[in-house]
Amino acid sequence: MSDDSVVRPRPEAAVTLRPAAGGRIEGGFWGARQRVNREVTIPLGGERIRESGAFANLELAARGAGGEHRGKVFADSDVYKWLEAVAWERGRADDERLRAAYEEAVELVAAAQRADGYLHTHTQLTGRERYSDLASSHELYCAGHLMQAAVAGSRATGDRRLLEVATRFADHLVKDLPEDALDGHPEIETSLAELYRETGARPYLELATRMVTSRGRERLPLKGHHGPGIRQDRVPLRAATTVEGHAVRAVYLAAGAADVAAETSDRELLAALEGQWREMVATKTYLTGGLGSQWYGEQFGGPHELAPETAYCETCAAIGSVQWSWRMLLATGDPAFADLMERTLYNAVLPGISLGGDRFFYVNALRVRAGANPDDRRAPARGRQDWYGTACCPPNVMRLLSSLGHYLATQDGDGVQLHLYASGTVRAGEVLLEVVTGYPWDGRVEIVVRETPGHPWTLSARIPSWADAAVVTPGPAGPATGAGQGSLTADAEPGTYHRIRRTWRPGDRITLDLGIRPRLTSAVPRLDVARGQVAVERGPLVYCLEQADHPGVVVDDLCVASADLRDGTPIPGLPPEVVPVRARGRAHVHREDDGGFPYRTATAPQEPEHAGPIELTFVPYYAWANRGIGPMTVWAPMH
Amino acid sequence: MSDDSVVRPRPEAAVTLRPAAGGRIEGGFWGARQRVNREVTIPLGGERIRESGAFANLELAARGAGGEHRGKVFADSDVYKWLEAVAWERGRADDERLRAAYEEAVELVAAAQRADGYLHTHTQLTGRERYSDLASSHELYCAGHLMQAAVAGSRATGDRRLLEVATRFADHLVKDLPEDALDGHPEIETSLAELYRETGARPYLELATRMVTSRGRERLPLKGHHGPGIRQDRVPLRAATTVEGHAVRAVYLAAGAADVAAETSDRELLAALEGQWREMVATKTYLTGGLGSQWYGEQFGGPHELAPETAYCETCAAIGSVQWSWRMLLATGDPAFADLMERTLYNAVLPGISLGGDRFFYVNALRVRAGANPDDRRAPARGRQDWYGTACCPPNVMRLLSSLGHYLATQDGDGVQLHLYASGTVRAGEVLLEVVTGYPWDGRVEIVVRETPGHPWTLSARIPSWADAAVVTPGPAGPATGAGQGSLTADAEPGTYHRIRRTWRPGDRITLDLGIRPRLTSAVPRLDVARGQVAVERGPLVYCLEQADHPGVVVDDLCVASADLRDGTPIPGLPPEVVPVRARGRAHVHREDDGGFPYRTATAPQEPEHAGPIELTFVPYYAWANRGIGPMTVWAPMH
Repeated sequence: MSDDSVVRPRPEAAVTLRPAAGGRIEGGFWGARQRVNREVTIPLGGERIRESGAFANLELAARGAGGEHRGKVFADSDVYKWLEAVAWERGRADDERLRAAYEEAVELVAAAQRADGYLHTHTQLTGRERYSDLASSHELYCAGHLMQAAVAGSRATGDRRLLEVATRFADHLVKDLPEDALDGHPEIETSLAELYRETGARPYLELATRMVTSRGRERLPLKGHHGPGIRQDRVPLRAATTVEGHAVRAVYLAAGAADVAAETSDRELLAALEGQWREMVATKTYLTGGLGSQWYGEQFGGPHELAPETAYCETCAAIGSVQWSWRMLLATGDPAFADLMERTLYNAVLPGISLGGDRFFYVNALRVRAGANPDDRRAPARGRQDWYGTACCPPNVMRLLSSLGHYLATQDGDGVQLHLYASGTVRAGEVLLEVVTGYPWDGRVEIVVRETPGHPWTLSARIPSWADAAVVTPGPAGPATGAGQGSLTADAEPGTYHRIRRTWRPGDRITLDLGIRPRLTSAVPRLDVARGQVAVERGPLVYCLEQADHPGVVVDDLCVASADLRDGTPIPGLPPEVVPVRARGRAHVHREDDGGFPYRTATAPQEPEHAGPIELTFVPYYAWANRGIGPMTVWAPMH
Repeated sequence: MSDDSVVRPRPEAAVTLRPAAGGRIEGGFWGARQRVNREVTIPLGGERIRESGAFANLELAARGAGGEHRGKVFADSDVYKWLEAVAWERGRADDERLRAAYEEAVELVAAAQRADGYLHTHTQLTGRERYSDLASSHELYCAGHLMQAAVAGSRATGDRRLLEVATRFADHLVKDLPEDALDGHPEIETSLAELYRETGARPYLELATRMVTSRGRERLPLKGHHGPGIRQDRVPLRAATTVEGHAVRAVYLAAGAADVAAETSDRELLAALEGQWREMVATKTYLTGGLGSQWYGEQFGGPHELAPETAYCETCAAIGSVQWSWRMLLATGDPAFADLMERTLYNAVLPGISLGGDRFFYVNALRVRAGANPDDRRAPARGRQDWYGTACCPPNVMRLLSSLGHYLATQDGDGVQLHLYASGTVRAGEVLLEVVTGYPWDGRVEIVVRETPGHPWTLSARIPSWADAAVVTPGPAGPATGAGQGSLTADAEPGTYHRIRRTWRPGDRITLDLGIRPRLTSAVPRLDVARGQVAVERGPLVYCLEQADHPGVVVDDLCVASADLRDGTPIPGLPPEVVPVRARGRAHVHREDDGGFPYRTATAPQEPEHAGPIELTFVPYYAWANRGIGPMTVWAPMH
């Protein structure tokens, strides 16, 4: 198992934790998702990208004779993200089909590259001057995704051909990119930093640093009605107190800035990023972990502006959030970052792809109302789509799922830290751990030490902040170990790492019981869109009410009548392992005369009238819209 | 007083009511607004439009030699709307300055027109082929505004020069416009209908009819991610059950369709429009009358999707709503249309312009949160602006205020109907009424018959639907009149016309007392964004809480503690006649630890903690943001 981490800080980087050298998911919840990703989504993605013309663009560019560019200006990035997914899959288990697809695409990319290293098919085919419209052209955004794919190829397969393409491009940028050039869509910052990590070429880091630190000075030209904030060009990151503008751009930039801060030991920048992250979590994050409350500009709203039905929550923003949080976790070791990663993976990334792996959401709203207009192709009311004209999200999910094992664990001088729970193995230096769990359906996680050095080290297991009844049982184990490390069960504190230090022996095991059972969740008063309402969660999963489970009433009218929640039996049409949650509820009466002007003179807020009791069925939010499309809500009033 | 109505159905039109021949506002609330409009806004608008390059575009087009077009593709329409306002002002009271400005601009417009009648400076200056991009070019939209200005010029001043320009253009369109051509932005439909009304040229009506009835078949090319609904091209109007897409476009189209339905006696179309209007009022209208809940596409959201802070509520959409409702009122005589007109005028049109008449809102949100990002120039959090790059709203307000007198009253075979209350006079055939009122601050309205024919007729006075304590006192009058028409006070039913039929004599008067006092308003359960909340209204005015009146607390945290509302004393910084409303309130405690993840495990929705009592001050929503900019809300929780 090679060290194929997505993020691999240099030895001198200012980080608290370093990624475990190898994390491998085998079976269980995420194993099933990885299987579907490999067997269905990635092959399908290759086809869709071919149909979109993105490969044809590369072929035309390779011929060097011009021709019509198809798709969006960032079409190249679809190829690169898909290539990155293929590379990680080859690292998981290479096969001839994957190898051939990878090598064919890499040849094409290499052929399309100009002699001086430049590569952007839209610019090459249209003949537009390079770097003449960086606010919109996505030239450097595409370059960044090329670099990430190249790093993945190098780390996962040892094949350095794409890395050579990427470094040629990066060398060109270092040499020829106009001073102070910034891309309207950040992405290249984190990619240049990782390319530096992979190659040791410090000019890449210097270029990334320049881009991160020179941004926020209103240098990018304005477009449309938007101010500079939409492109994170209003306030320098070092001075910013919040995230703003286009959500994907914001979190990609922040991830790159975290890389720069780590590699340049820039503690001031890191502290600024941490403040922005905390403000984002406190005021601009949906319960699902989703980011971006405005369709207009695909951007963050103001603080506490988190209307569920108009949530944008682009799948890509969730992926960028995971990337940013992971880098902050490495830098600080604070479990809050892992908490958000987990919430986001289950409830903001995963909803972006159907259970079958072949249909996608671009926008992940927390509510769809009865009668919602499906006019826009991205409208959740239209249901999952086969693909999108702007196809950023599907291959982004592919590359994340393919590399998910890399995010399970870290190591430091003192031992190994487990952040996410999935059945599989973790390699960290001389340590090899095996994890066996039915998580997230079951809160029991067994951690078995398979290989260990002879000296003492600390095993740290994250206790999620929602796990208010977590216990840790060290054992049944091998031979008795250090003092106080018997087989007594210990309470574990939510939102911390439970740490056990001992001299471990192969076969030692500890068992976590994270106490997964359904619970109600409410929101602080300033979060007015959840006022008077509750949501259901169970373990790391956010649940929702879906029309399919409530015939005869409209989801819009449902409310929760009791805090007594129970696990339900499997639901036809969903995989049998999915645990629904049941509760007593009622429906508002939607009266005939409600058809008039909906505002009435009153002496108090209108008390809804209720019909008789209804059995409510909550299903995991990630699994919604897999049984047709209809009204859905995460939040429901409680009366 | 000539018959200078904005809308003047032909004698054979299928309408229930016809506009009064002359309505004149003198003094009072709207008189003051008209004075500011004439003395400040219209001169300032002329300057701003000149600075924008819109006049320069016309000059370049007149020279016929090409040149750089400045501003948006619809820049011409700014000139036309401003010209329309100037025309109506000349009708109210002509003066040399207005006449000169009008004639100079008309000369310029006439000079810019091509020999065959075509006129669109953007197309002329860029050399783009005519009608080759109607989904975006706004060629016909501009043509429509030209026609409306021309009709205003003809009716208000008798000067027919601009009408000649408009009819040349219309004749060209009738002859040369490609079959089935539709503009992406409806507007020309209502303009062609009115040009028909003014000239009697039936081909104009036929062209309008064709445009209204051929729309909704997905013929316009799609742009961006939007489906055909954004341009009202998804469903034919005759089959539609709701309004959808870009709100301004939707209501402009509906107004034009109402004109077509009236002039072609198309009862089926009228019934469809009425259904759409009622559905809009029931599910897609803000308490202010504002329309459009999505910034993205400036469009209507789904039913009950009416989040206050992300409300778009473009000033132009409110103006279009007034236009549509007025046409529906003429067609049906149903006071519900007048109710919405009044609500919209005070609370959705008027907020679009500052008290001083020199600053504007494009977007009229019902809430601005603490910390809201003013990145977009249209963001309400940025406060009112001097002007906008897309300057559709300011001159639209100008033309509406200048012509507001035309919307006060109607007539039918049986008498005169008063719909809006403003001090002034109404001429309807042989009847001349004088109205004296302190409305909307004071609910007392005196209606004096100044001229009358000798035979009996019915005076109908609208009792607004909010006026649950309205009384009508016939008298003190002249000599005693018909049976049952003594000076006894009678209760009047809200949401109806109170009708008094008698043989009137000059000097007869009746007095309405509409019982204006502050009241609380709530919303139906499906309108979840108002759940647990109340708003304050007083007469036709919607009120709001503004930061300026609540030092030491944040408006976001305020809640209403009592239904006991009282009129307050004048507020420094607002005109002395403005009546604030006071109530007992409290503030949520925004706790230190609210700075973390805002969602908590709970057994019920979180009950906010409150600090001690606070005296709340509500000010009319139209008057907000005239004392600096800060948080504001129309809805507040009640605890």
